[in-house]
Amino acid sequence: MKTNKQVILKNRPVGVPSKDTWELIENNISEPKEGEFLVQCEYISLDPAMRGWLNDTKSYIPPVQINDVMRAGGVGKVIASKHPNFKTGDFVYGQTGVQQFTITDGKGYHKVDPNLAPLPTYTSSLGMTGMTAYFGILEVGELQEGDKVLVSGAAGAVGSVVGQIAKIKNCKVIGIAGGADKCEYLINELGFDGAIDYKNDDIKMKLKEFFPKGIDVYFDNVGGEILDLALGRLALHARIVICGAISQYNNTEAVIGPSNYLSLLVNRASMKGMVVFDYAKDYGKASMQMGQWMKEGKLKSKEDIYPGIENFYETFLKLFSGEKLGKLVLKVSDD
Amino acid sequence: MKTNKQVILKNRPVGVPSKDTWELIENNISEPKEGEFLVQCEYISLDPAMRGWLNDTKSYIPPVQINDVMRAGGVGKVIASKHPNFKTGDFVYGQTGVQQFTITDGKGYHKVDPNLAPLPTYTSSLGMTGMTAYFGILEVGELQEGDKVLVSGAAGAVGSVVGQIAKIKNCKVIGIAGGADKCEYLINELGFDGAIDYKNDDIKMKLKEFFPKGIDVYFDNVGGEILDLALGRLALHARIVICGAISQYNNTEAVIGPSNYLSLLVNRASMKGMVVFDYAKDYGKASMQMGQWMKEGKLKSKEDIYPGIENFYETFLKLFSGEKLGKLVLKVSDD
Repeated sequence: MKTNKQVILKNRPVGVPSKDTWELIENNISEPKEGEFLVQCEYISLDPAMRGWLNDTKSYIPPVQINDVMRAGGVGKVIASKHPNFKTGDFVYGQTGVQQFTITDGKGYHKVDPNLAPLPTYTSSLGMTGMTAYFGILEVGELQEGDKVLVSGAAGAVGSVVGQIAKIKNCKVIGIAGGADKCEYLINELGFDGAIDYKNDDIKMKLKEFFPKGIDVYFDNVGGEILDLALGRLALHARIVICGAISQYNNTEAVIGPSNYLSLLVNRASMKGMVVFDYAKDYGKASMQMGQWMKEGKLKSKEDIYPGIENFYETFLKLFSGEKLGKLVLKVSDD
Repeated sequence: MKTNKQVILKNRPVGVPSKDTWELIENNISEPKEGEFLVQCEYISLDPAMRGWLNDTKSYIPPVQINDVMRAGGVGKVIASKHPNFKTGDFVYGQTGVQQFTITDGKGYHKVDPNLAPLPTYTSSLGMTGMTAYFGILEVGELQEGDKVLVSGAAGAVGSVVGQIAKIKNCKVIGIAGGADKCEYLINELGFDGAIDYKNDDIKMKLKEFFPKGIDVYFDNVGGEILDLALGRLALHARIVICGAISQYNNTEAVIGPSNYLSLLVNRASMKGMVVFDYAKDYGKASMQMGQWMKEGKLKSKEDIYPGIENFYETFLKLFSGEKLGKLVLKVSDD
């Protein structure tokens, strides 16, 4: 008989998570009760935000509790159901957690169609990642046609979609990424107008070159020094979208604040935070638009898929090491 | 024959301006040419922004040049005119500079009525200070009735007006100021709901007490540690208005960035800079509203007036020493 491999939180990390932050355990698979269904999880979404969920601090959602299954979004197949709206054979997306099987009452789940797009895409451009990019750049960033746009973490899951949407909207788009390969990828594969290699380029000089009249929208995934340099190069009425701060998530010391923030005053600019859940009621509309762009070949979805729930820890660390390209996904099913 | 005493910029300061930053000189008073008029300056507005105008860096207006008369707004009386719209005896407000007499073509000048309000009020609540408060809290801060509002520099020129406007709009208003006297003034004279003495109180604890559900609007005049503490106490969808950063203006080292800025993300909040000149087209409407509130006794304008153009330097320093209450004004006319 099959068991359910689960990744549970054992210790709250300080700084970068370590081997003993999580533990892999095995449990029996339970049967769904009335109003529930059983999902065999296939692909788990790995996101920088998960690092935040490990801290025992007040945030936009409660932290994961010790001995609880690690929170994660995932796609899988319904293999048993006593729920009126989900039947055996349906494919679904929801907060499955990092495990191979999950029982749910369906709250927060929706069906996905594996014939329209490969399953991993639903954790990526057609999932929260895509929604974050879509609402972040269009709503929070108030993107206008012709804007000069800077994106950090540009080869990452959210950044790569943000840049492509801005291109669709006829903007000039420059991405910041680590390494020549990623920079080439941004320009040659995704159609960015330019790229800055933060590991090798003089970022400040490059920003001056690429934005002679200043940045209209800066989509920030990284925080730290790059946020400060972008602040130093704003155009009048610029908008900064604070989507994340991956450079700061594993800090053991205080977060570094943007010392150029007074550029907001000089340029009458704004800096605005976002959490994608606020836009839940419009996910449907956005997904349809994103799917349409993908069909038309205007939007490419790139997933970097690693196999094996046993490799959760090592794969998770790739979020912060800069090794991955596009969306990081873990295949958790054994077959 | 009378001469024109003028304060000119001699040396760009590093940190706090020193005695040799400016020089007092005397010149002859010239005659207005066709299309010009001569103003006898009465009261000069002293503002923290003036410190910024001394730095030779790109900002929202060019820096004051060495050997130029120090830039300042002021009110005075037209004593000779060859201008079609301004006649001898008119009282006017404009960028007079720190001097006793000025010749102008009238650009940026408007008439003021000394019968409606005392002349110094036109450098204060009915001048740029009042306009900054008005547009800052209502437009940039998007103030809503019932908002919980925090104002720093609350006993200062802009802050005291911001707080009073928020009270008029039925908000809960807490001010931060230095010293028990100022705190009492905020509560007893201006009707604030509470005050925090940053010199003696535990600011963090007080913020928790006053804002159990978080701050909706923070109007920031000071920057530094207080901005950071306010960021740590935001309500969902909070708005921070960056009006100034007086704690940072005389820094010789880098500005301290707000390390709690990721609270913007968690709370889907925004931080927005402002420069009052952007609202010039609506000054008239705003002045009328402010005048109306003053007439109704809902808005008090407090000026701290010091005599003598010779005392410009010592008086200017009071902007940063926390000595003054309300708007700092220098009387520059000899009589």
